Amino acid sequence: MTHKVLLLPGDGIGPEIAAQAARLLKACQEAGLDIDVEEALVGGSAYDVHGEPLPAETLEKAKAASAILLGAVGGPKWDKIEDLSKRPEKGLLGLRKNLGLFGNLRPAMLYPQLASASSLKPELVAGLDIMIVRELTGGIYFGQPRGIEERNGERVGFNTYIYSESEIERIGRVAFEMAQKRGGKLCSVDKANVLEVTILWREVMERLAPEYPDVELSHMYVDNAAMQLVRAPKQFDVVVTGNMFGDILSDAAAMLTGSIGMLPSASLNESGQGMYEPCHGSAPDIAGQNIANPLAMMLSVAMMLRYSLNETAMAERIEAAVGAVLDDGLRTADIASEGTRCVSTVEMGDAVLAAF
Amino acid sequence: MTHKVLLLPGDGIGPEIAAQAARLLKACQEAGLDIDVEEALVGGSAYDVHGEPLPAETLEKAKAASAILLGAVGGPKWDKIEDLSKRPEKGLLGLRKNLGLFGNLRPAMLYPQLASASSLKPELVAGLDIMIVRELTGGIYFGQPRGIEERNGERVGFNTYIYSESEIERIGRVAFEMAQKRGGKLCSVDKANVLEVTILWREVMERLAPEYPDVELSHMYVDNAAMQLVRAPKQFDVVVTGNMFGDILSDAAAMLTGSIGMLPSASLNESGQGMYEPCHGSAPDIAGQNIANPLAMMLSVAMMLRYSLNETAMAERIEAAVGAVLDDGLRTADIASEGTRCVSTVEMGDAVLAAF
Ligand SMILES: CC(C)[C@H](C(=O)O)[C@@H](O)C(=O)O
Ligand SMILES: CC(C)[C@H](C(=O)O)[C@@H](O)C(=O)O
Repeated sequence: MTHKVLLLPGDGIGPEIAAQAARLLKACQEAGLDIDVEEALVGGSAYDVHGEPLPAETLEKAKAASAILLGAVGGPKWDKIEDLSKRPEKGLLGLRKNLGLFGNLRPAMLYPQLASASSLKPELVAGLDIMIVRELTGGIYFGQPRGIEERNGERVGFNTYIYSESEIERIGRVAFEMAQKRGGKLCSVDKANVLEVTILWREVMERLAPEYPDVELSHMYVDNAAMQLVRAPKQFDVVVTGNMFGDILSDAAAMLTGSIGMLPSASLNESGQGMYEPCHGSAPDIAGQNIANPLAMMLSVAMMLRYSLNETAMAERIEAAVGAVLDDGLRTADIASEGTRCVSTVEMGDAVLAAF
Repeated sequence: MTHKVLLLPGDGIGPEIAAQAARLLKACQEAGLDIDVEEALVGGSAYDVHGEPLPAETLEKAKAASAILLGAVGGPKWDKIEDLSKRPEKGLLGLRKNLGLFGNLRPAMLYPQLASASSLKPELVAGLDIMIVRELTGGIYFGQPRGIEERNGERVGFNTYIYSESEIERIGRVAFEMAQKRGGKLCSVDKANVLEVTILWREVMERLAPEYPDVELSHMYVDNAAMQLVRAPKQFDVVVTGNMFGDILSDAAAMLTGSIGMLPSASLNESGQGMYEPCHGSAPDIAGQNIANPLAMMLSVAMMLRYSLNETAMAERIEAAVGAVLDDGLRTADIASEGTRCVSTVEMGDAVLAAF
């Protein structure tokens, strides 16, 4: 059966890195992978053409696809759009919500070749390998009521942080299963000393724990988790948390590696359909200069092959190719260091394809 | 006029470090400072005696005081209290709310003597000096409605993230004024690409900016701020943000210094009354062992003298004494390193008093 893959280049550096992913997909096809690749617009680039960050046509294609590859969305060009529902980010949030992509997997791992890129002391990050499991379709991102309105003679802004037991249980199971496949340790992050919604979160995690006797569950307050990530990140194996805390902690964790340009992510729904994208953003400041790092995007292809298309061998081939290129000393500007060769986006794509 | 100072030792290591602050206050009195020091119970230790984390008597004394010195609250002993309103943390939150202590100043600065304590590479943190201004009496910590209830056959937990224009303006002015007194740079942290409440936040900060033409205002999304703190913390001067984001970012920033045991904080209301406390928590794991670092607590005394009692000279004497003790190579266990002398809580107190 031919898998449909939808490529959504998006904004900023998105199109440049997506072009390298497209070349890689073609190479996979030539190597025997049975996929059919389509492209569509999302984010600011969709807004510019259709006046909508998530055109109906894009959403239809996304629903029909086995997997989606997304570059990145957003940029200062669209920051002035008054109507929040038209902003590029709503294209991304709309895809997550409409496809039910509740399970966001954000690995933060350090490539040994890039150990010196971290801002942390080498001994604190050597061998770092954390998996952050972030709930992606609930919490304060989607809670109602929300808005800005007049109350008692002045405006107030408000959002609602809300989770139901079933939403918590669903993401909890993803995290427990992930911990079973990895080091057997799961840290659930909440703010149960202040927020009722996270008291329920903690309670549900506790209730699930006996079903996974091989997983050691612990709890940590979010402020402490932010500290511990900076202090001693290797204490973590799998971390599970809600949408907002996950947004913050996964970015901090990714940055610990010093090479956020290397990190892919997956967003999965109940039927295994997934959206894959780099952890980094659209980096509008360097867009169009052929200097962006395409590796997170190319590794997103590998993650897609593993999680949605069940093509582990092909995924490993991509990861090995990336490793070989790093071993050869090739680096884009964001990860360059003394004694390495600084290459462009396209040159990095060339090198991975040659090593594939 | 005699200033009333209320000392609230609290829980965990609180009493041990508060004892050193009490000695320091006595030394200040002997040096001519006109203060009257009282003590009261708060947090878990108040709950154990009165069944309430914030007894009426403590609140009355706090209201009558010019300044409050708090050790720390909380610990596993009280984690099982079902009723959230009785937990130790509610003692702290109740003090903040009842006294209107909306302006939380959390400096993250690196003592040159402790440069090697940071988990970051020395060149990234040398000279680090960030001031985080956190809104402390609003936002999701206090927003209504909140709770856990049954909806559609299952329980949901919910909290409300809410700010009014006047609340935002009030903390904004504190931050702009702080930036004027410091490096002239203010970074406001929000999530305006997703949350309406922070769209209003950003709008109010923008509206205030023209009144402070000597301050350069910038905006950053909270996920990016967490990354930038790890990547290049010295880019920040003053950071202003809401209660929840401030909780997370100020802890991460404090940990960047590697010496959270050194950092005091202030929480101020409109009339300059303040509560002063270490940035670190109650550290129940090391309580009662006479090994906790009392310096953040002793430096909280200095911060109190500066911000609430207007006794700058005396504050500087304390800070100089702490600097001298560090120069002499004395360290508590949390900041010990090769070639320094590891001392107990009381010995560290002795040394500061001797140098005062
Ligand atoms: C672009 C933005 C809406 C998004 C988020 O906050 O989820 C991004 O930061 C991410 O983490 O994928
Ligand atoms: C103890 C807790 C309620 C408190 C908070 O979240 O504000 C603490 O983490 C702090 O930052 O002072």
